[in-house]
Amino acid sequence: MLSLFFVDQLGTGSTQELEGDEGHHAVKVMRLQIGEEIKIADKSGNWVSGAITEVGKKSLKIDIAQRGSAQYLKPELIVVQAVTKSDRIKEMLELLTVAGADRIIPWQAERCISKWQSDSANKWSIAIKEAAKQARRVRLPELADAVTTNQLLNLFQAGDQIITLHEVAKSNISQLKFAADTKRIFLVIGPEGGISDNEIDQLIAAKAVTVRMGENVLRSAHAGFAALSVVQTLIGRW
Amino acid sequence: MLSLFFVDQLGTGSTQELEGDEGHHAVKVMRLQIGEEIKIADKSGNWVSGAITEVGKKSLKIDIAQRGSAQYLKPELIVVQAVTKSDRIKEMLELLTVAGADRIIPWQAERCISKWQSDSANKWSIAIKEAAKQARRVRLPELADAVTTNQLLNLFQAGDQIITLHEVAKSNISQLKFAADTKRIFLVIGPEGGISDNEIDQLIAAKAVTVRMGENVLRSAHAGFAALSVVQTLIGRW
Repeated sequence: MLSLFFVDQLGTGSTQELEGDEGHHAVKVMRLQIGEEIKIADKSGNWVSGAITEVGKKSLKIDIAQRGSAQYLKPELIVVQAVTKSDRIKEMLELLTVAGADRIIPWQAERCISKWQSDSANKWSIAIKEAAKQARRVRLPELADAVTTNQLLNLFQAGDQIITLHEVAKSNISQLKFAADTKRIFLVIGPEGGISDNEIDQLIAAKAVTVRMGENVLRSAHAGFAALSVVQTLIGRW
Repeated sequence: MLSLFFVDQLGTGSTQELEGDEGHHAVKVMRLQIGEEIKIADKSGNWVSGAITEVGKKSLKIDIAQRGSAQYLKPELIVVQAVTKSDRIKEMLELLTVAGADRIIPWQAERCISKWQSDSANKWSIAIKEAAKQARRVRLPELADAVTTNQLLNLFQAGDQIITLHEVAKSNISQLKFAADTKRIFLVIGPEGGISDNEIDQLIAAKAVTVRMGENVLRSAHAGFAALSVVQTLIGRW
């Protein structure tokens, strides 16, 4: 598959330039040469691809051979991810991105050891972009604003399917049923310390179902990936 | 859940000692105290649990309150994992262990960048034990001898279900069907560079089915975890 790069906005002409950090990386680190084909996408899932015709010091240009746009699929898969310890952020976002999360909502849950900070959104965005490049995923997962539990509950609408992963749940994830017209599936992933009883009660009152994935204790940074893999399969997309 | 430690062999008396590295870790790093309850397992899935009655410099003793043995489940889930780059080994084994692999077979595939070396088995074993402790998984996944492709093909028996994850497969993983009496499921995970055409042909000749998991490019170190999560769900165990 073609190497993938991101720009803020694609031009409308028959060529596309790649500058800035992405251009620098392509030219200096990957040492791409004239004639090699690459793909360049914007942050909304539009893309162009074609062969490199010019290589500068920190930039390159391609002749556009193909244009396209990544499909939006229904249901939308939304991961509510408890704010992760800093040493697990990159891994967690790499996993959620490759498993096809459409939106990631950072959740400041009661038992999170780490706090969402002023530079967190920037750190998470960079990790998401890197993960998308690695996975050759054209449309980036959207990173939503961080929420408290109350703010999270306010996001839910009638018809949403809300699935909370909880290690003491009585139902197994394989028992989930999905209605054909579901528009949004939320997967709620608690912190390492677990979701508090109070949070579980509030989620259940908001019509969340709680399910477990086996007997072993999954890390918070891994649980979303497992849950996405399962749901992608149960809805027949994988 | 109780913290978990491993010993080579459990005693038969009413108390159990924990010595060596595990004892040192429990006493010096985790600073466990008299009265705290822990679980101690051997490498075959037998375990005891109870409260700590003595703490030494590098060892401790518990009064055994409970004894048990982790169940063997059928089908056996066997992951054939292409030898992973050294910086991904720990992550890969953590993921396979928590997702419930029963056996892990290191595979020296054609396009592996890394080679299986004299100290690899030891490194993989340590990572598996650490992962099992983190996941509170009593029965360790068995680490098999490393195999070449020919040796791998010789392991397969009539009735085995062999599933090869392949990014250009035509079938989706959600289309898999499992016979109720399947005894062994093999999940074959290729290296970062992919499974070679020759290897795919040989696997298909050995009755492997090839399936894909979505459009994105999964890392070799992550693919087994996703595939196990899906299969655990499809066979109704998760």
